[in-house]
Amino acid sequence: MFDIKAYLNERKKEVDEYIERYLPLNGEGPSILRKAMRYSLLAGGKRLRPILVLTTYEIFGKNDKDEIMPVAIAQEYIHTFTLIHDDLPALDNDDLRRGKPTNHKVFGEATAVLAGDALLMESFNLLLKSTLPPDRLIAITKIISRAIGTDGVIGGQVMDMEAERDKKCNPEIVRYIHERKTASFIRACIEIGAIAGGSEKETFEKLSRAGTLMGLAFQIVDDILDETSTPEELGKTPGKDRMSGKCTWVKVYGLDKAKRKAQKLTDEAIEILDSIENSDILKEIARFIVERSY
Amino acid sequence: MFDIKAYLNERKKEVDEYIERYLPLNGEGPSILRKAMRYSLLAGGKRLRPILVLTTYEIFGKNDKDEIMPVAIAQEYIHTFTLIHDDLPALDNDDLRRGKPTNHKVFGEATAVLAGDALLMESFNLLLKSTLPPDRLIAITKIISRAIGTDGVIGGQVMDMEAERDKKCNPEIVRYIHERKTASFIRACIEIGAIAGGSEKETFEKLSRAGTLMGLAFQIVDDILDETSTPEELGKTPGKDRMSGKCTWVKVYGLDKAKRKAQKLTDEAIEILDSIENSDILKEIARFIVERSY
Repeated sequence: MFDIKAYLNERKKEVDEYIERYLPLNGEGPSILRKAMRYSLLAGGKRLRPILVLTTYEIFGKNDKDEIMPVAIAQEYIHTFTLIHDDLPALDNDDLRRGKPTNHKVFGEATAVLAGDALLMESFNLLLKSTLPPDRLIAITKIISRAIGTDGVIGGQVMDMEAERDKKCNPEIVRYIHERKTASFIRACIEIGAIAGGSEKETFEKLSRAGTLMGLAFQIVDDILDETSTPEELGKTPGKDRMSGKCTWVKVYGLDKAKRKAQKLTDEAIEILDSIENSDILKEIARFIVERSY
Repeated sequence: MFDIKAYLNERKKEVDEYIERYLPLNGEGPSILRKAMRYSLLAGGKRLRPILVLTTYEIFGKNDKDEIMPVAIAQEYIHTFTLIHDDLPALDNDDLRRGKPTNHKVFGEATAVLAGDALLMESFNLLLKSTLPPDRLIAITKIISRAIGTDGVIGGQVMDMEAERDKKCNPEIVRYIHERKTASFIRACIEIGAIAGGSEKETFEKLSRAGTLMGLAFQIVDDILDETSTPEELGKTPGKDRMSGKCTWVKVYGLDKAKRKAQKLTDEAIEILDSIENSDILKEIARFIVERSY
């Protein structure tokens, strides 16, 4: 039987090695900025987004590290940018992330703002080092900037705050937030893996749809884990989302319905992937997303 | 005689029209986010960066708005992103910008952080709408992400804060800050105008060098104006940089030497531009940068 945890661990090691290679401590720019960027980038994490890029790319029989690693690692830069800014006192005001003090707790707020900015900017520097052909690089850059921008992760985060502040939470709002804050980025990682791999249109669209479903399942499970985990498992204070009045899937539908919904989304994703050759590992990741306990 | 002020005014109007076209009030994403982005984007400003892109592009006899306007306006998005984040309480803590309350004063800190993030991200969305060929778009995206990233504007801003906090200021530090915080971006705008226009290598390198000199002159003049302007002229509190202990050119060299240095840099830039055909307007802009009184 395929050991998905062992697979993810192996790939995480590979991702971490490339992060170290692409952003060594010594390099251009102020050293405090590099330290702050590296602190959050290397603070752990599952590396799910870069792994999704890699796994999807490999569906197409490709294995050129110079093509794909800059693109994959750039997604972890972007993910880390979103975490640093979300944790800021003016936003979620979190002291802990992945079991460690958040960036602004260690480096101060000003440096945390700029370290986030720098990670976002450097993600584009990095991905453009890929040896992929120019038209694919442009398609990838477009996908990412749409997935993160006004109608993507950043827009979802704004709506998340608005809902919390106005104490508004219903099926429509939680779906709006989840689609943008989480699903759009998970989908984008799968899409750019497909573009890099040279996918034709039909397969691309199937993968894109499966990506949305996996992304929605991922955020529902996150909402569930926020309610049911210990602090050690979660790496941050559990129950914080509920207590702060965030609009979560669990809040709208309750725990049981949320669990069933996550499973249903995952089943749908796997059904789509069943029609794509060589997608077994991606299916295992879809299952892992809903079965993970942290 | 060529009226540079009238020219800049005309181009500013054109830039403002395209901003309105590219980021209308109604569109994708949360409306409060669009409002916050538009507030700072439309709060005035000389539009120097997009105008530098346009003027340089036109040196090469080109005039295709679908090619160049997305690239030019994207630079104003990025510039506005840097202003919103620089003004934050954790950074420069400015209440006024261009004579109006800063973004976080109007929309709150959380939205200001995210509006800055969104402007940076959407700048890439926008510039990739240009009809320029893929290889030029990639070259342009590379130039921008380097000019803004760890060793560019963001790195310069980090060093600016460090110098202020540690009360360290000498010729080397002020040069390091000016080159990154300001000159790298001004140079990048001229470089991408040249790439978009199809410049060959030799001219590109001359323009790049002139851009650095103009950028350094621009920041020295900014430092001078911070000391010598009225609040109405400056649109923010004058003397704030000196009082807060920022490392400025005036602080290191005094007002007179700073004025002479700005003039010398401008003369050098114009000498380089003298060897480039059709660069008369760019020369006028170089003169305007050092002669402006606000």
